[in-house]
Amino acid sequence: MSFELTILGNSSSTPTSRRHPSAQVLKINNDFILIDCGESTQNQMLRYKISHSKLRYIFISHMHGDHFLGLPGLLCTMSVQGRIDDLDIYCPEELEFLINLQFSLSDVQIKFKIIYHKLKFDAPSEILETRDYKVTSIPLKHRINCAGFTFQERAYGRKINKQETDHLNLTQPEFENLRNGGDYKGKDGKVISNAKLTFDARKSFRYAYITDTLYDEELIPHIDHFELLYHEATFAHDMVDRARSTFHSTALQAGKLASRAKVGKLLIGHFSARYQKLEELLDEAKDVFIRTDIAEEGKTFKLR
Amino acid sequence: MSFELTILGNSSSTPTSRRHPSAQVLKINNDFILIDCGESTQNQMLRYKISHSKLRYIFISHMHGDHFLGLPGLLCTMSVQGRIDDLDIYCPEELEFLINLQFSLSDVQIKFKIIYHKLKFDAPSEILETRDYKVTSIPLKHRINCAGFTFQERAYGRKINKQETDHLNLTQPEFENLRNGGDYKGKDGKVISNAKLTFDARKSFRYAYITDTLYDEELIPHIDHFELLYHEATFAHDMVDRARSTFHSTALQAGKLASRAKVGKLLIGHFSARYQKLEELLDEAKDVFIRTDIAEEGKTFKLR
Repeated sequence: MSFELTILGNSSSTPTSRRHPSAQVLKINNDFILIDCGESTQNQMLRYKISHSKLRYIFISHMHGDHFLGLPGLLCTMSVQGRIDDLDIYCPEELEFLINLQFSLSDVQIKFKIIYHKLKFDAPSEILETRDYKVTSIPLKHRINCAGFTFQERAYGRKINKQETDHLNLTQPEFENLRNGGDYKGKDGKVISNAKLTFDARKSFRYAYITDTLYDEELIPHIDHFELLYHEATFAHDMVDRARSTFHSTALQAGKLASRAKVGKLLIGHFSARYQKLEELLDEAKDVFIRTDIAEEGKTFKLR
Repeated sequence: MSFELTILGNSSSTPTSRRHPSAQVLKINNDFILIDCGESTQNQMLRYKISHSKLRYIFISHMHGDHFLGLPGLLCTMSVQGRIDDLDIYCPEELEFLINLQFSLSDVQIKFKIIYHKLKFDAPSEILETRDYKVTSIPLKHRINCAGFTFQERAYGRKINKQETDHLNLTQPEFENLRNGGDYKGKDGKVISNAKLTFDARKSFRYAYITDTLYDEELIPHIDHFELLYHEATFAHDMVDRARSTFHSTALQAGKLASRAKVGKLLIGHFSARYQKLEELLDEAKDVFIRTDIAEEGKTFKLR
């Protein structure tokens, strides 16, 4: 299974001449998933050659404009350019209301079906399960209702050791039993341990998108040992008071959470427009968690 | 008085990798005026180094997203970056409602005062008069209520001919009388004709912004002999049926209207995303009105 993450925007509320508000596209196999959709997302998709016609799901974390203002325009463009496939949008219920009102005031008819799924903000909640992965929303600690999202590949079965199993002429149910970790039991009552007939399962990939939030160790159980964590880092730590009062995190805090959750890799983003260069924020996070990278716009992180 | 027009967006509803939806900044003396505000307008202002803090007035023609979707984000940015000056917005009343609702759902407080002025769409209406110019809204023929705007410099008084007036030792009221075209009457009853003591007044500059509309000759009296006309040209004329059914104009029609209204210069814009190169549209308009130019993004037309 392929897992690719392309960053479209890494700015917080105010864009800069080079940075745009939050948006990223996660590709899992053939599913293109848009996570947040700040203003100019459709321009960023044009720039980085990601076709909106491929989008299957959209997830919107919360009702601050820098996370959704690009959505109405994107939906209109999809419609004008002939989309007919259904589109599932996971978002706060107020967004459905707002978008429908706007389309009504603009006398716009969207020609494909949009299925809105209302996010809950009181507890983690599994919101989507496909054949290949599941998506969970996790409440974050922001000024208004806000959700993070985790994307977890389905668990793989153990790999069959062909050399050791060939002479056993296994049936399909016997293969399944081995993949699920069971031992082999022959008709003659002979038992061969699973460890002898299989290899460890391929590791499932897990990605967490944690945007606008205070530093929050309650997140750790939900992202523990994840392969990749995106965590907002709006400010450097010398502005921790401002981060706290605006319900945001610092780069150091992002690094600290990544370290405590023992993730494989950390991407930081959602930078305040006050930072012209991002090295300061990267260095600060790296001081506590070395495997940190900037969520650089236009960059695709191939995760497998 | 200086008159400068900078184009920020010349695309119709769908942006392309190089073009953005409608927005332009008109500078009259020290007043910066934003006309329409499609998605990404604040990015375009950053790109072309026009500070949003200078904006004094905003005019929004109608409720189609490609003409206003950049406004909520721009207002938030202005507020975050410390604007305190009042801002006057002339727009359909639904837009005020929509923006206030969105800010309320997003729990956003704008820290400066926005004064909304409701456009009327039943007849031309003078909506703003400053010391230097006046602005009139003109109903256009679009699918929904839509207004064009004209910006007309105040009339200048006739210029005093110093050589001829020096020996008369004129009082202030006598100067005013000459500037307004009156003849000079001396204390001795002697009359000198105005033509002898003054030169023709400096010509006032007039600009018309005519976006989303059917070809409409009823506009001519309102833009007659204007120095500059911006007119939408969404399609080439081989798509005149499509233009008609979507209440838009072709490049040829824009040229025809410019010609009939005897304007000084025509700018065409609001191009459909189907046109990769714009020469086809420019040539078509030029065939009927030679003084046509593309409303090219980033270009500033210095009008005086």
